[in-house]
Amino acid sequence: MIIALKRNTPSGERERLISWLESYGVRTHVSEGEYQTVIGLVGDTTRIDTDLIGGLEIVESVTRISEPFKKANRKFHPDDTVIRIAEGTAIGGGHFQFIAGPCSVESEEQMESVAEAVKKSGARVLRGGAFKPRTSPYDFQGLHEEGIRILLETKRRTGLPIITEIMDIAHLPLFEQVDVIQVGARNMQNFELLKELGRIDKPILLKRGLANNLKELLMSAEYIMAGGNERVILCERGIRTYETYTRNTLDLSAVAVLHELSHLPVVVDPSHATGHARYVRPMALAAAACGADGLMIEVHNDPPHALCDGPQSLTPAQFDEVARAVKKLLEAMEGD
Amino acid sequence: MIIALKRNTPSGERERLISWLESYGVRTHVSEGEYQTVIGLVGDTTRIDTDLIGGLEIVESVTRISEPFKKANRKFHPDDTVIRIAEGTAIGGGHFQFIAGPCSVESEEQMESVAEAVKKSGARVLRGGAFKPRTSPYDFQGLHEEGIRILLETKRRTGLPIITEIMDIAHLPLFEQVDVIQVGARNMQNFELLKELGRIDKPILLKRGLANNLKELLMSAEYIMAGGNERVILCERGIRTYETYTRNTLDLSAVAVLHELSHLPVVVDPSHATGHARYVRPMALAAAACGADGLMIEVHNDPPHALCDGPQSLTPAQFDEVARAVKKLLEAMEGD
Amino acid sequence: MIIALKRNTPSGERERLISWLESYGVRTHVSEGEYQTVIGLVGDTTRIDTDLIGGLEIVESVTRISEPFKKANRKFHPDDTVIRIAEGTAIGGGHFQFIAGPCSVESEEQMESVAEAVKKSGARVLRGGAFKPRTSPYDFQGLHEEGIRILLETKRRTGLPIITEIMDIAHLPLFEQVDVIQVGARNMQNFELLKELGRIDKPILLKRGLANNLKELLMSAEYIMAGGNERVILCERGIRTYETYTRNTLDLSAVAVLHELSHLPVVVDPSHATGHARYVRPMALAAAACGADGLMIEVHNDPPHALCDGPQSLTPAQFDEVARAVKKLLEAMEGD
Amino acid sequence: MIIALKRNTPSGERERLISWLESYGVRTHVSEGEYQTVIGLVGDTTRIDTDLIGGLEIVESVTRISEPFKKANRKFHPDDTVIRIAEGTAIGGGHFQFIAGPCSVESEEQMESVAEAVKKSGARVLRGGAFKPRTSPYDFQGLHEEGIRILLETKRRTGLPIITEIMDIAHLPLFEQVDVIQVGARNMQNFELLKELGRIDKPILLKRGLANNLKELLMSAEYIMAGGNERVILCERGIRTYETYTRNTLDLSAVAVLHELSHLPVVVDPSHATGHARYVRPMALAAAACGADGLMIEVHNDPPHALCDGPQSLTPAQFDEVARAVKKLLEAMEGD
Repeated sequence: MIIALKRNTPSGERERLISWLESYGVRTHVSEGEYQTVIGLVGDTTRIDTDLIGGLEIVESVTRISEPFKKANRKFHPDDTVIRIAEGTAIGGGHFQFIAGPCSVESEEQMESVAEAVKKSGARVLRGGAFKPRTSPYDFQGLHEEGIRILLETKRRTGLPIITEIMDIAHLPLFEQVDVIQVGARNMQNFELLKELGRIDKPILLKRGLANNLKELLMSAEYIMAGGNERVILCERGIRTYETYTRNTLDLSAVAVLHELSHLPVVVDPSHATGHARYVRPMALAAAACGADGLMIEVHNDPPHALCDGPQSLTPAQFDEVARAVKKLLEAMEGD
Repeated sequence: MIIALKRNTPSGERERLISWLESYGVRTHVSEGEYQTVIGLVGDTTRIDTDLIGGLEIVESVTRISEPFKKANRKFHPDDTVIRIAEGTAIGGGHFQFIAGPCSVESEEQMESVAEAVKKSGARVLRGGAFKPRTSPYDFQGLHEEGIRILLETKRRTGLPIITEIMDIAHLPLFEQVDVIQVGARNMQNFELLKELGRIDKPILLKRGLANNLKELLMSAEYIMAGGNERVILCERGIRTYETYTRNTLDLSAVAVLHELSHLPVVVDPSHATGHARYVRPMALAAAACGADGLMIEVHNDPPHALCDGPQSLTPAQFDEVARAVKKLLEAMEGD
Repeated sequence: MIIALKRNTPSGERERLISWLESYGVRTHVSEGEYQTVIGLVGDTTRIDTDLIGGLEIVESVTRISEPFKKANRKFHPDDTVIRIAEGTAIGGGHFQFIAGPCSVESEEQMESVAEAVKKSGARVLRGGAFKPRTSPYDFQGLHEEGIRILLETKRRTGLPIITEIMDIAHLPLFEQVDVIQVGARNMQNFELLKELGRIDKPILLKRGLANNLKELLMSAEYIMAGGNERVILCERGIRTYETYTRNTLDLSAVAVLHELSHLPVVVDPSHATGHARYVRPMALAAAACGADGLMIEVHNDPPHALCDGPQSLTPAQFDEVARAVKKLLEAMEGD
Repeated sequence: MIIALKRNTPSGERERLISWLESYGVRTHVSEGEYQTVIGLVGDTTRIDTDLIGGLEIVESVTRISEPFKKANRKFHPDDTVIRIAEGTAIGGGHFQFIAGPCSVESEEQMESVAEAVKKSGARVLRGGAFKPRTSPYDFQGLHEEGIRILLETKRRTGLPIITEIMDIAHLPLFEQVDVIQVGARNMQNFELLKELGRIDKPILLKRGLANNLKELLMSAEYIMAGGNERVILCERGIRTYETYTRNTLDLSAVAVLHELSHLPVVVDPSHATGHARYVRPMALAAAACGADGLMIEVHNDPPHALCDGPQSLTPAQFDEVARAVKKLLEAMEGD
């Protein structure tokens, strides 16, 4: 951390600041210049609040050199984290997974039909929403408990582990037999929820918020990990920009950056990012090409009649084709 | 709502779509063109899910002409809503209020000292955070129950009604004697929380999310209002852009747009928006000049040592000067 | 400037970097830490290219502490710059001006009618576009030479100095008698044009680009000033964000930030920023309240039939009312 | 195009609007509703200015259904455009090309060394900047005429066609023997330049502006094509967002969207988009995977000492490895 002091800072005030900083266990180095004096901090600065220091009258600017996340940081854990989702199914560190299924759970028939299809095409995790965050209070909000029940029934019949989104801590008991809990983009900074999920023993798929940068995504992962649950899967699902042809702007460079900064697996969701079924295939291929550890794709047996996000769902046949193309691409790249 | 069909849509499919749309109680008008057929919907389209229709194979595009919010919509409630916060303190419809206080509640002494000062300068609502959303799990998170206790004690001593932020439904019982509950920017689309707040009888100050547009802000207000609680105060607090000199970009045109679209009061928070105490004065004046119904300003008796967001806090003396300047400006404009 | 080196950088390479840096006439200070070595640069770092240094293998990060602009920098010119536009008309340093007129010059009658009206309401500079940047090649592009001729004729008849936009260096000879040359948002980084305008002796109004931050705006001003022409007026006209109710998002905190960083006058254009006549009044008042040195407002005698940007134009009567309100607000604030 | 009228519009005014619209050769269909009357326009609406109509007092909103670009529109030219760059070198419609070379031309030795290397690795077009747009007037601006001379000399020696950026119409004579002229992101809406380039007979590579949406990119292509030069290559090079780990946010969904909307070839520039050499490989692979027609990659024989944009340049050896991986991926996908 680098602290630049304002010109003419009295040396007494400077010394007081330095003592206070050193009380956090860091060492300081001072460079005095004509226009500026600069204090360099060396050691573990994670617990030093840059806002606090930036607020001091004598400080001109504060710059963090090292990242404020620790458990999620590749510097301290150089190897890729491999997360076991179920018997024989892992993600990260070379294990690539397709997570597929409908946006919303609608009925047992629908879930079973989609689950059987995507399993045949190679998906090893089934997705389906029981609690749905919708912009309008008048739109379909999901089947709730009944949705979870249907998911578990589908899991029992097909053997596929399931992932579904949680929207409130109070619902946590319903998720006991869910394999992976998803935190949606709108809840990426619902810190109370993250802390609670840090106390359970289950993989968490954490989606990047629409206006959140990668540092914030990793800090949210850190919230979960700091509580003791280190099985966090990161998910890029598009950010909000001024472009309107796609629902959001899929930021694939996030995959490369996250892999550099962190050891956690990174999944890409091209369905929500683009909002259109016809862009899922090219974006799925691109995500696989730049190193994503998995793809989360919406598949519905009857997209035009889906109760939620139909326009972005693939049919099982389309998903099968995309999965084949992705697998072919991965094989070609593996021989590298 | 306007639905453009793809070229060569079979008339049978078109008729099925029309019957289905009319089952929602709307009337339809069809314009047939060489390249395109367009269906216009007339009536209450609030409950029609545009995503659902946009997903149909035969549909090229769907455009909403009227707004999807109803209770928050000025079309249906032409008069400004005036919200009573406490005996003798109201906001909206010509009632302007200063909401002031520290970012975080730190101690009884701090709260009482700030409260007495801002009261003298004209603030009629006291703010102070007991539960603090922080990007890092290692930063100060607030005093929680103890913070609420201190706020209530300060209220008792000074007579100022209090506003404080809720971060989770589970904490609601602690807020029983709080006068106004704040929903922070990161929770603007925490729909489960919004629904719960729709069931209580207390004003809610709803902050705009960092990446949320004004339609989404009004839809979140609609979530609360649809539950029965129509006392919602909207708050503009800056949006995320590429500019970095200010923490966020304060969108003051939001004040004018929200007043046009909705009858709800609109408050501006220049402290969080800019992130720097020195920009609070000009932005407070600008907000008042463009018609805000109130200002939410951070005031701390010792900003450089505030446990949270110090750099953006005014001292009581600075707040006094800003409040004077704002009042003078409001008076000059009133004579209009 | 602060340069953080990678861990384990050989001391030979570090010394070579230091010698090279010192060849630019700056002094260096080295702080060695366990994980990081930091080099602080003191002196005039304007000519040091941070990209170049950031690209060195041994460098982890480069942070500029002082701003890379010099002539536009308030640090080196503490007093506000006052720019003389015409005999008796100046802007900046307490001189507030209304710049008003139609988006496009359409005819002599139109210009004279608008000019007389806005002059009566207090405008001291007349705007009107002869060369119009339009997104579509099929839209009206302006009257070109004929437009300039009409502007000059209107200037002759009304005595109002004129401002009009240049789109290409080749047109410069046509601007000889124009009082202020405008550089539009799309040309803010047309560096060849900026350099050329640095060689002439005429005030330049430089509009902020839609995706440009304030540092870049000031660097573009620096391009003009570095050439010798120091009469630059900055103009905030809205930036591109995800919000769609307004055409762009007017960033009024830019006024406060620019006044802090620079001594140049700052004008606000609420017409282009919002794109709607009905938002011009509140945003004009807000701009004046936060310290803008002038307002640039579109006025048309027949907005619905304007050949360009009609929706955002005020009628002369509306402009008169806005100008009155702004003047009243400025007077109230002056007594401060 | 769909025009929604305000409630209670007098039928006389409505009829006048309809006659005026029909004077453009389009047909109109009126749907009358309780709250709203809607006019649908059928036919070629390219020349109808939506801003103009939106400005009419009686109009509530205007929505374009069909795209305002024509020559760039795939609807009217279903087949991919294949652009011949030089004897035996074409791009688009299945012809994939690597465009490689340094950011700036520095010397004959540098250019020849890089050119020979990238040619060996499979590049068929050589890039190199002679005129460089730089944010700061104090940064290196390119070798200008001398740079072009070196490029042409390198072309003569290696046989590689060259692409270089134009910054001003006045320089056009210098580009006579250049094979492809590049329009940089900052000039994407320099309409005078685009019009001039529409009059010459040479392929133009048009880069997307930092804050421009895809419609605007295609409208800028339309400017060139409307002048008669239909050989436009589109280039995605990242857009400006709030994310700061990468210089810009590479929008790869743009490749899929542009291919759907237009028949023009689409090239991706991962070097400028990410700003870091280490992200070029994953983004190049991703671009190829989602269907880009080519890659524009910065290669420098000595990146740390490049006079411009060194940090994002690959060494010739790194480029060779990336090119191999991309070719392998393309082959694997071809067999599809």
